[in-house]
Amino acid sequence: DLSISTRQHFSFDALSLESGATLSPVVVSYETWGELNADKSNALLICHALSGDAHAAGIDESGAPGWWNDYIGSGKAIDTDRFFVICSNSLGGCSGSSGPYSVDEKTGKPYALKFPILTIGDMVEAQSHLIHHLEIETLHAVVGGSMGGMQALEWSARFPNAMRKIVCTAATPNHSPQQIAWNEIGRQAIMADPDWNGGEYYDEIAPAAGLAVARMIGHITYLSESALETKFARRLQDKIAFSYSFEAEFQIESYLRHQGQKFVERFDANSYLYITRALDYYDFAARCGTLKAAFESTKAQFLFASFTSDWLYPPRRVREMYEAAQAAGRDAQYLEIDEPHGHDSFLLPSAQHETAIREFLG
Amino acid sequence: DLSISTRQHFSFDALSLESGATLSPVVVSYETWGELNADKSNALLICHALSGDAHAAGIDESGAPGWWNDYIGSGKAIDTDRFFVICSNSLGGCSGSSGPYSVDEKTGKPYALKFPILTIGDMVEAQSHLIHHLEIETLHAVVGGSMGGMQALEWSARFPNAMRKIVCTAATPNHSPQQIAWNEIGRQAIMADPDWNGGEYYDEIAPAAGLAVARMIGHITYLSESALETKFARRLQDKIAFSYSFEAEFQIESYLRHQGQKFVERFDANSYLYITRALDYYDFAARCGTLKAAFESTKAQFLFASFTSDWLYPPRRVREMYEAAQAAGRDAQYLEIDEPHGHDSFLLPSAQHETAIREFLG
Repeated sequence: DLSISTRQHFSFDALSLESGATLSPVVVSYETWGELNADKSNALLICHALSGDAHAAGIDESGAPGWWNDYIGSGKAIDTDRFFVICSNSLGGCSGSSGPYSVDEKTGKPYALKFPILTIGDMVEAQSHLIHHLEIETLHAVVGGSMGGMQALEWSARFPNAMRKIVCTAATPNHSPQQIAWNEIGRQAIMADPDWNGGEYYDEIAPAAGLAVARMIGHITYLSESALETKFARRLQDKIAFSYSFEAEFQIESYLRHQGQKFVERFDANSYLYITRALDYYDFAARCGTLKAAFESTKAQFLFASFTSDWLYPPRRVREMYEAAQAAGRDAQYLEIDEPHGHDSFLLPSAQHETAIREFLG
Repeated sequence: DLSISTRQHFSFDALSLESGATLSPVVVSYETWGELNADKSNALLICHALSGDAHAAGIDESGAPGWWNDYIGSGKAIDTDRFFVICSNSLGGCSGSSGPYSVDEKTGKPYALKFPILTIGDMVEAQSHLIHHLEIETLHAVVGGSMGGMQALEWSARFPNAMRKIVCTAATPNHSPQQIAWNEIGRQAIMADPDWNGGEYYDEIAPAAGLAVARMIGHITYLSESALETKFARRLQDKIAFSYSFEAEFQIESYLRHQGQKFVERFDANSYLYITRALDYYDFAARCGTLKAAFESTKAQFLFASFTSDWLYPPRRVREMYEAAQAAGRDAQYLEIDEPHGHDSFLLPSAQHETAIREFLG
């Protein structure tokens, strides 16, 4: 399904945030695929991960494919012949929705660090405004991986009557200290870059070096050790012997530098700070004291999926959610999928993952 | 054994390096504990890890304890009542031995990036000069963990008649692409810091922010996920609720910032580049094509030790060495020690580790 999907924008007056601050106005950028049926019962919300955006499927005007094209499309696991699929850029992001790069109407300049700190709950509230704007009362499902999985979870408890099904894949109910640590080191790398300048760089040079380092850390946590071994081993980059220098000697070094470089061309460093912060704050169980109690406040059917090689969002922590949901009397399924790519597995083609989602969506 | 150990210096004229360059002169800083016996048969060389130095045991003049005080001392696993124990600062380091901060006699200024690129083999050659200077023909053992374990390995093949025993703990025969990646990201963080200035900062401000980020990455790779969970969980730092800011909210964040800060006070950023580069280059098997063939060129008795929770230098890669050494006909032992601290376990008290080393040294 290579239909061109067009970015749309919806804005509303104001959002009261968990921190107590208010964001006003709020813009939500989104794309849709498929057709909403007459009784508006076939809508599906897709929630993206840290560095994703609303362009989950199809190709955009520049020809770029969606980040979940393997899963969303005509006849695919998330079948756009049957479902009306919506994906919005997360609040705090840098692809059309309100974020630190947005112009603050009060000053006429980008918010930068005056943008309020966000939570996963705030992101979900913004999505909910969009869903109301589209006049959808009940979503067939909210589907997400990684941060998107946390958002799906948050939907299930915050708006228990707003969806029938939740797909939560490669996500944990909160960040462990190790997950917080990787994010914090990325933030420190950005803030250590003098070009970051306290976040005030929109008229100047962006903190590319710091953001690149943050992305490199991310990349290694997204890949399994064995995937790196298969992909790179200790192969040298365009040479047959060491050059004895600090140039990129190994392919893995060259790959990292390239990934860092590519990312800074498409992502905003301040967005990286805000979104990782929201991820680290998130704690699904905290709202009720225990995971089980948190799931007692939900009503949806759950599909939890994890990947054996994912060491960043490890299977045992996904299974914890499944067990708590079951203990809370929820209709829940759990799938541990044997894919070798690490956390990135949820973005990649996987017959087992695709089939499970297809069948779960019914 | 809290006897004060004094740093000594030995220098020699020149060292031909694996890269083809020559370093001249060469200074090796070292400490010793215990007494060399009459037939010089009780000497033991300790090799330190990336951020270590010659101060392995006792206290120094400032009262600072050695980094392996739990293992080295009177009556301890490495018993200074019986052994004459030597530890030297690694070539390329920043604690007395020749490194990028050393003054280049040709220019009268610190080498900075004009310091030649080093290998683990070069570091071992410098240690060997020291051992000859001390008039020791045969070491009872070469003992090291992490980078020190790689140096011990290298000793076993480069100077097969120079020792009776090798203790190689928490080390791998080379760096996997994941291990290279962590080091490379640390190097990128340092080189991204404008204060690094192409390595020319010795008369200016050191690249503290970049080095701190490199150290934070290191720290998380040295600790197991469960150790982080036990130590920090999601506890907040000096607060009972989120402040909704980019300040250190979680204890893990505060800890990382503190560790980064502490490290820049004692370590040289250029040394970090040179030493991590040497680690990434190292490949024990490359000398002969296979691990087995590499061990065939050795003569010593081997003790290999690993730690179950060490994900940076994982047990399976230590076991590989043991199996290859056995296949090569070497007298080898392997120990997988159940300690929860991750890679750092080799530095921490461990009854099993201590007993194994004590018994192996005989």
